Amino acid sequence: MSFFEPAPTFSMSCPSLLQDHPEITMAHGAGGALTRDLINKMIAPLLSNPWLAENHDGAVLDIQNRQLAFTTDSYVIHPLEFPGGDIGHLAVCGTINDLAMCGARPEYLSLGLVIEEGLSMARLWRIVQSIGQTCKAAQVRVVTGDTKVVDRGKGDGLFINMSGIGAVVASHKIAPEKITVGDSVVISRDIGRHGIAVLSAREGISFETEITSDCFPVHEMVLGLLDAGLDVHCMRDLTRGGLATALCELADTSGCGIEIRAADIPVEDGVRGACELLGLDPLYVANEGCFVTILPSDEAEAAVSVLNRFENGRDACVIGQVIEGNAILALETEIGSRRQLDILTGEH
Amino acid sequence: MSFFEPAPTFSMSCPSLLQDHPEITMAHGAGGALTRDLINKMIAPLLSNPWLAENHDGAVLDIQNRQLAFTTDSYVIHPLEFPGGDIGHLAVCGTINDLAMCGARPEYLSLGLVIEEGLSMARLWRIVQSIGQTCKAAQVRVVTGDTKVVDRGKGDGLFINMSGIGAVVASHKIAPEKITVGDSVVISRDIGRHGIAVLSAREGISFETEITSDCFPVHEMVLGLLDAGLDVHCMRDLTRGGLATALCELADTSGCGIEIRAADIPVEDGVRGACELLGLDPLYVANEGCFVTILPSDEAEAAVSVLNRFENGRDACVIGQVIEGNAILALETEIGSRRQLDILTGEH
Repeated sequence: MSFFEPAPTFSMSCPSLLQDHPEITMAHGAGGALTRDLINKMIAPLLSNPWLAENHDGAVLDIQNRQLAFTTDSYVIHPLEFPGGDIGHLAVCGTINDLAMCGARPEYLSLGLVIEEGLSMARLWRIVQSIGQTCKAAQVRVVTGDTKVVDRGKGDGLFINMSGIGAVVASHKIAPEKITVGDSVVISRDIGRHGIAVLSAREGISFETEITSDCFPVHEMVLGLLDAGLDVHCMRDLTRGGLATALCELADTSGCGIEIRAADIPVEDGVRGACELLGLDPLYVANEGCFVTILPSDEAEAAVSVLNRFENGRDACVIGQVIEGNAILALETEIGSRRQLDILTGEH
Repeated sequence: MSFFEPAPTFSMSCPSLLQDHPEITMAHGAGGALTRDLINKMIAPLLSNPWLAENHDGAVLDIQNRQLAFTTDSYVIHPLEFPGGDIGHLAVCGTINDLAMCGARPEYLSLGLVIEEGLSMARLWRIVQSIGQTCKAAQVRVVTGDTKVVDRGKGDGLFINMSGIGAVVASHKIAPEKITVGDSVVISRDIGRHGIAVLSAREGISFETEITSDCFPVHEMVLGLLDAGLDVHCMRDLTRGGLATALCELADTSGCGIEIRAADIPVEDGVRGACELLGLDPLYVANEGCFVTILPSDEAEAAVSVLNRFENGRDACVIGQVIEGNAILALETEIGSRRQLDILTGEH
């Protein structure tokens, strides 16, 4: 079969990663530089194939002439319930959004529960209920599942893994490699809500106005963009590591530069205040219902109009453009200076 | 869409399960009666749809006139490496086997890693290597993945979730509902190896001869049965809860009785000895490379011949038949008496 890649060399010596970090640290999972190294220098080479090389939110598979998107994510959030959502709602939204980013209509989900002994049955009930409700609202279905229980002290209440399948509806390829100099960067809504909402619940911090997570399925908005016939080059939902990390990854994979303007990036006042208080940069704070669309600049305003029609897209706007440059993300600050942004390092 | 089921009633009161067990216990994950209750009385009703109702190892989806099997499993085994395998090898084999049980040719896998802070990088490297090797040998590919890290003390080294997709090659439906009175039950190999191998590694028990796990992909054997044109009614791989639990579930779902003969069930001497020593019943010990095939009795010998051609099927044989009876599993003991077997209760 022509799509078989050369076999990975299993005699390859241990990677440099292993000498630098003999043990896994929290930073390896924070979505930043060490996560990228772990995946790109250790895991991906051992499992080498063209799909993983795409560096996309999911794989697009050709199955008997049908294009299917396939994606997976594990959810390990603490606390399990937070303002604006819970781990079950989050899992369904996250899976739907990853499929949508591949230009697919989300259809079928799997549900893997890893439950810690001692989890309250009432809490599990609420979370599974939330999964059912979110699925129903988004017209997707959990069609297969698995339940495991681990000893007390060997888990964190509940971990959820969710994989998803959807038929690709985009008529052209949507992937980081399609990003072109001159493209515009459109954001779908204000950033930073999810990270701040979870942090406030975890640390028991309360702010003047309660900040709720943006956790929401974005596929209707994506299908809206595709239905409008826009030549979307790439989309990416902003999760761990926030807007800055997502755009750094896209710059890195595409080899282009990306320039964004701080003054144009929507950040809600409460989120901005909380970030200042906590010493966080909203550009690096996690989101769960926000995505960027990269498309030719002469179609950017049309994309914004489509997104503005949705409740969760009413703040959508153009925040920057793709420029010549070697995999660099630049920020024009509010006072007009210019600085380079890097992928998140360590934990946020 | 006609395949939408009536919406679950979200106002439904908490199930009786919640009163009986206010907290999740280890037995809820042991694959026996409490696991069944948790899934059938709480999770499935909240996510209600025809696929979950099938009670199969995976879902068979109609996607634009193509039949695809879709399955998921989380692997939470301790220790991570054991005689005859490791968690990575186990995950790939388990996923392949679940797809094979749906009559599908396994093709694409997802890989979700939940790593505990402090896991040795060298161990992770070995396990991912093992995933790559097992995939290569079985001609399947990991096409999408996700990596999370959890705090020390909030995990157990490494949990793996793997989902899989494969095109259904069986020309007729293979499912518990197809089981018919008069069918024969064929087993593919000797039972109990995996559970004993893992237990010996976990507890540091050594036996006269080392018992290695049977962890192995069975899809080639399944494709062999289908290629031979046999009218396979149902297949089930034996995992948690062992042969007895798998057959109890099939009896329960099909509404038929199943009768097996102890004298005909292959158990390796070392496994039998270890079970006697540990007070375990091999019928309830976990397997990872063994499956039962249920098909018309006049095709049973042909099925055995096909399986015998494979190294891992050389002990394949007929062990029983489907009889009239209300969801009951009966065992004819070696001394000729008859007793009823139940699903595993509690932990084994």
